[in-house]
Amino acid sequence: MQDTSGPSVKAAIIGASGYTGAELLRLLLSHPFIEVTIITSRQYENQPLTSVFPYFLNSKYQHLVFQSLNLEKIASVDLVFCCLPHKTSFPIIKDLLTTNPTLKIVDFSADFRFKNPAIYEQTYNVQHTAKELFEKSTYGLPEIYRNEIKNSTLIANPGCYPTSVILALYPAKKHNLIDEKFPVIADSKSGVTGAGRKATVDFTFCEINETFKAYAVEGHRHAPEIEEKLNLKVRFTPHLVPMNRGILSTVYFKTNATKDELIQTYEETYRNEPFVRIRKNPPTTSDVKGTNFCDIYITKDEKTGLGIAISAIDNIGKGASGQAIQNANLLFNFPETTGLEQFSWWI
Amino acid sequence: MQDTSGPSVKAAIIGASGYTGAELLRLLLSHPFIEVTIITSRQYENQPLTSVFPYFLNSKYQHLVFQSLNLEKIASVDLVFCCLPHKTSFPIIKDLLTTNPTLKIVDFSADFRFKNPAIYEQTYNVQHTAKELFEKSTYGLPEIYRNEIKNSTLIANPGCYPTSVILALYPAKKHNLIDEKFPVIADSKSGVTGAGRKATVDFTFCEINETFKAYAVEGHRHAPEIEEKLNLKVRFTPHLVPMNRGILSTVYFKTNATKDELIQTYEETYRNEPFVRIRKNPPTTSDVKGTNFCDIYITKDEKTGLGIAISAIDNIGKGASGQAIQNANLLFNFPETTGLEQFSWWI
Amino acid sequence: MQDTSGPSVKAAIIGASGYTGAELLRLLLSHPFIEVTIITSRQYENQPLTSVFPYFLNSKYQHLVFQSLNLEKIASVDLVFCCLPHKTSFPIIKDLLTTNPTLKIVDFSADFRFKNPAIYEQTYNVQHTAKELFEKSTYGLPEIYRNEIKNSTLIANPGCYPTSVILALYPAKKHNLIDEKFPVIADSKSGVTGAGRKATVDFTFCEINETFKAYAVEGHRHAPEIEEKLNLKVRFTPHLVPMNRGILSTVYFKTNATKDELIQTYEETYRNEPFVRIRKNPPTTSDVKGTNFCDIYITKDEKTGLGIAISAIDNIGKGASGQAIQNANLLFNFPETTGLEQFSWWI
Amino acid sequence: MQDTSGPSVKAAIIGASGYTGAELLRLLLSHPFIEVTIITSRQYENQPLTSVFPYFLNSKYQHLVFQSLNLEKIASVDLVFCCLPHKTSFPIIKDLLTTNPTLKIVDFSADFRFKNPAIYEQTYNVQHTAKELFEKSTYGLPEIYRNEIKNSTLIANPGCYPTSVILALYPAKKHNLIDEKFPVIADSKSGVTGAGRKATVDFTFCEINETFKAYAVEGHRHAPEIEEKLNLKVRFTPHLVPMNRGILSTVYFKTNATKDELIQTYEETYRNEPFVRIRKNPPTTSDVKGTNFCDIYITKDEKTGLGIAISAIDNIGKGASGQAIQNANLLFNFPETTGLEQFSWWI
Repeated sequence: MQDTSGPSVKAAIIGASGYTGAELLRLLLSHPFIEVTIITSRQYENQPLTSVFPYFLNSKYQHLVFQSLNLEKIASVDLVFCCLPHKTSFPIIKDLLTTNPTLKIVDFSADFRFKNPAIYEQTYNVQHTAKELFEKSTYGLPEIYRNEIKNSTLIANPGCYPTSVILALYPAKKHNLIDEKFPVIADSKSGVTGAGRKATVDFTFCEINETFKAYAVEGHRHAPEIEEKLNLKVRFTPHLVPMNRGILSTVYFKTNATKDELIQTYEETYRNEPFVRIRKNPPTTSDVKGTNFCDIYITKDEKTGLGIAISAIDNIGKGASGQAIQNANLLFNFPETTGLEQFSWWI
Repeated sequence: MQDTSGPSVKAAIIGASGYTGAELLRLLLSHPFIEVTIITSRQYENQPLTSVFPYFLNSKYQHLVFQSLNLEKIASVDLVFCCLPHKTSFPIIKDLLTTNPTLKIVDFSADFRFKNPAIYEQTYNVQHTAKELFEKSTYGLPEIYRNEIKNSTLIANPGCYPTSVILALYPAKKHNLIDEKFPVIADSKSGVTGAGRKATVDFTFCEINETFKAYAVEGHRHAPEIEEKLNLKVRFTPHLVPMNRGILSTVYFKTNATKDELIQTYEETYRNEPFVRIRKNPPTTSDVKGTNFCDIYITKDEKTGLGIAISAIDNIGKGASGQAIQNANLLFNFPETTGLEQFSWWI
Repeated sequence: MQDTSGPSVKAAIIGASGYTGAELLRLLLSHPFIEVTIITSRQYENQPLTSVFPYFLNSKYQHLVFQSLNLEKIASVDLVFCCLPHKTSFPIIKDLLTTNPTLKIVDFSADFRFKNPAIYEQTYNVQHTAKELFEKSTYGLPEIYRNEIKNSTLIANPGCYPTSVILALYPAKKHNLIDEKFPVIADSKSGVTGAGRKATVDFTFCEINETFKAYAVEGHRHAPEIEEKLNLKVRFTPHLVPMNRGILSTVYFKTNATKDELIQTYEETYRNEPFVRIRKNPPTTSDVKGTNFCDIYITKDEKTGLGIAISAIDNIGKGASGQAIQNANLLFNFPETTGLEQFSWWI
Repeated sequence: MQDTSGPSVKAAIIGASGYTGAELLRLLLSHPFIEVTIITSRQYENQPLTSVFPYFLNSKYQHLVFQSLNLEKIASVDLVFCCLPHKTSFPIIKDLLTTNPTLKIVDFSADFRFKNPAIYEQTYNVQHTAKELFEKSTYGLPEIYRNEIKNSTLIANPGCYPTSVILALYPAKKHNLIDEKFPVIADSKSGVTGAGRKATVDFTFCEINETFKAYAVEGHRHAPEIEEKLNLKVRFTPHLVPMNRGILSTVYFKTNATKDELIQTYEETYRNEPFVRIRKNPPTTSDVKGTNFCDIYITKDEKTGLGIAISAIDNIGKGASGQAIQNANLLFNFPETTGLEQFSWWI
């Protein structure tokens, strides 16, 4: 473990004015070993953090100012959180690693999430020009890839939906409890921060409030991510819930295992995981608000022979910024829960 | 058709102080042939309607007063809407029909919804002491039972979830497009009025707001209702959405039919239905707020061979009070859409 | 009164894709004498109404298509609702009236609200180039200007805040019950539709939901409108409430009148008003949702000698589209409540 | 300062199953010197904390069980947070202090907030039978009474509204900048947790959601509390906002001071306060969510000569549980911000 007498890791956040960037800053306020020294934003360049997010007044980050994206300066830190959108991330990461090959990076985009670049290119409809980095990159889901993450320098932070669905299915898949002749279905429901911070009429208050809908019904780009990591065909349907945070995934799979076997398998698989809680009752998204927890309930519907796993995460916690810090902790050999000791504020 | 020069049907609403009762009153304000003359409420007995619901001030119902449940008086009207909870409804309906055998009744409870009384008794854990009325009663889903409704006097108004799920599956089932070797799954999401108007901590604002959850995961009493009407085994999972009105059901079934065949079947089945709209895009619950519409989107996921039907209703519109008026119109041979011409207020 | 055997007035809505335009369309669905034949939208030109607002499917307006702004076509109708933003409205209205001087127009913008053009120009920071129309225009608050409206052709539909504040103060001002040595204070709270339908980060769901704030604290352009109509200095502070519809104004004025005198004055002033309800208890915004009502509660705080009037309206009902229809009814000598018989949907 | 090598203060929370109790537990999870060892609840007696609040799973308090109120056991701790309702608190506190006269208590009720018991008895309509404790008790608003708090053992934690209003007026009052011939007006708006955790129809989700109202217009019991502490007559009107947390108070007072004088006075008064932030722009309640901050904006309306102060707090943070911990820190001579280092989660 590194010296921990004070913040030893200097970090930059690229694209810090979005929801995941703001949540990173909030969480890192209480991280003893990581200090954010650079934040960038194209939109708010040269504006103080506290003029955009005044709630940081009086905090240790109150003097930060949004900067433009200066490769030299950013490459001089120890750790970069890259919160840029898909497709815009890989060229910058390529440049950063060229400038400083020992830089450690946690990337929030999908650009390095796939083992198979062809699936990425097809799903995101772009040519990937930094494929050589695929072999250096690791999918940052510690519950499955902890050891690879520790030995990596470029972490592809998982998508929020994939985190919730993969963790809900992983124990059953790992232990061959899924009858794959029947389709696996992941019916997911997300809060609105999942759409990011952007100015579109579709996400204005009045058009989201007091309504519920499915979207991307013909195909969502998180489906291939789920399928590659689980090596499993999954029907995935996302829905939008009029609330800020949280994803709840209700996952159905045909199984011959009994309810008790399922419970036992899930409990054993995650026994030593600090951030997965196998619940005795179905979780709510408010149980995990602001935290890095993934709460999972597993049961069986005897009538239909379906295993049903219900998982709840905070989409910008375990689904984004929390998990990014968990990955950063692994990268720097800090205790994995450092800075992630928050429990839900519930109401 | 009856004489329609003015309100010719006198109606009573039993249990009028709940959400469905209040919605009935609101909708019937614009019904030209039905006039509410009696409203009852145990809780608000002797209180004016406008002291409980002041928004009825200046309306034609502003002078109504909540009364106690007086069988003689109620049996003297032409039509009774019975909005009492399950189990408390059947003894009162039995007494009403004994007092006035020609009374027409639309019952909102589950007490007369089942063909098979044993399923009712098992599901609701009570002995039914008015089973002789089962043969007089009709399940009030006009899209399937229109003719039976017209010739009936006791209508069992369907549950809100069953309305949304049955209408989403009925065309596929009717035309044998469901491969029943695979379980059918109905993943439903409801607004909070579905829980009724009751004082419990679980439904206070702060504990519903900003959270999402599944409930009754081990079994919900609407599942047997769905299964009996469709003659189909269905895995049903309800969820609670932090909004007042609306149910969206996402329904999955294995099918050999193509997407086009599914669309064509759904369009044909509901071609002449005034309240079912087959949508070209997935509906939102705000599309049907305050209305008697059921909007349905049907598609196919080629990868998994799943037909996916998404239906949206207002749970206290088509899911309760709107449908009750539709049934009343059929009972009295009024045009079926009378008083139900509302379109969504959207925002 | 005009012939009322069927829709006799053909209407156009300019800028029909915003919240007020959509509400106009919804309300006019049930108006027996007005028929919308043209809707315009720059943003959605050539798109069917139902592709933007699918909830109009099956309605009598389902075949409307958003058109570009064609002066000739629009000037050929009987009635124009102009829902354009401030400053963009007056040039178009000038052109319309040049093309067809008998056209009747209800303008939603502030462009013709002021008697004194200098105040308009200062408040909206623009030069008004159609000042000659000021003498033809009437401020469309029927409770004060009913007769002028009937004899006018150009109606300046009042602002939503001014409607709520003016109606709350008018009886006290009219009867000289306000001690004007003390400042009058209007502390208003509005739902989010008041901001219009626009794509800005500030009004995205997540940044409005679960928060409350004052805005335009140093001065809001509705203050001069209130002050001119009441001939009274008023401190006006608007706030934003995380809900779609509704304005509640809490208005404080020093008075020597007793509570009973205040109540009596308010009741008498509005005795014959179809859309003002003097309430015995403080109103909520849900009492008036979707309606053209303004509910007012008046009381006195003996300790401080303050009269306190609390008014509630639906900002896009009586605060915009409802009031526009009320004005249109007056313009065409229809019964004033035609098409405005809705009562609140409450929940 | 006490020894701080580990939690040295054992604390009990009486009435821990309400919103303030739950928030205390959440905040104290990260307090290094205070350890909660007893939680009581009449309603959930003998139930584990995590069966009522499952989000505490995996936390250091996960093994706590709600107990009945055992005076002996409770009196054996060092510090009691008493979260009981008004009127039920004083008899228990009297007994506790009889059992253990050195016990330190922070009481959340109004029972010891008044200097003048007659005002308490009149406001709360009860005879106070522990008046002898009034001289030992201190009003727990550290910004005004810090030194008295440090030397006290019984702290009356202020009401949420009074905290927001008193802090907004205190600098102006203290420096004689208020022209008291004119009434001072505090127009306050609160989130719903302010009503406490109770089962009533009035606070169910559907009846709070999407509506806004004033309440207690004829008189709220927090007004006398504000007036006694400020020695100032204040018109106080509370409103209910459909959101969980937060109070925003808009306060108006006549003043001869200039805007600059007001700003300077406010900044100087609170210069050394760790939890008051004088803002350059009006605050939102989301700026202070989950925190112990009170954000204040001060300005002047030249037209009317009104000073306008806008304050924002989290009603269960600085308005209750946060302030209680601040008081506890003072009681035990811990650094005042200990355990209160949270910044808002914003969205």
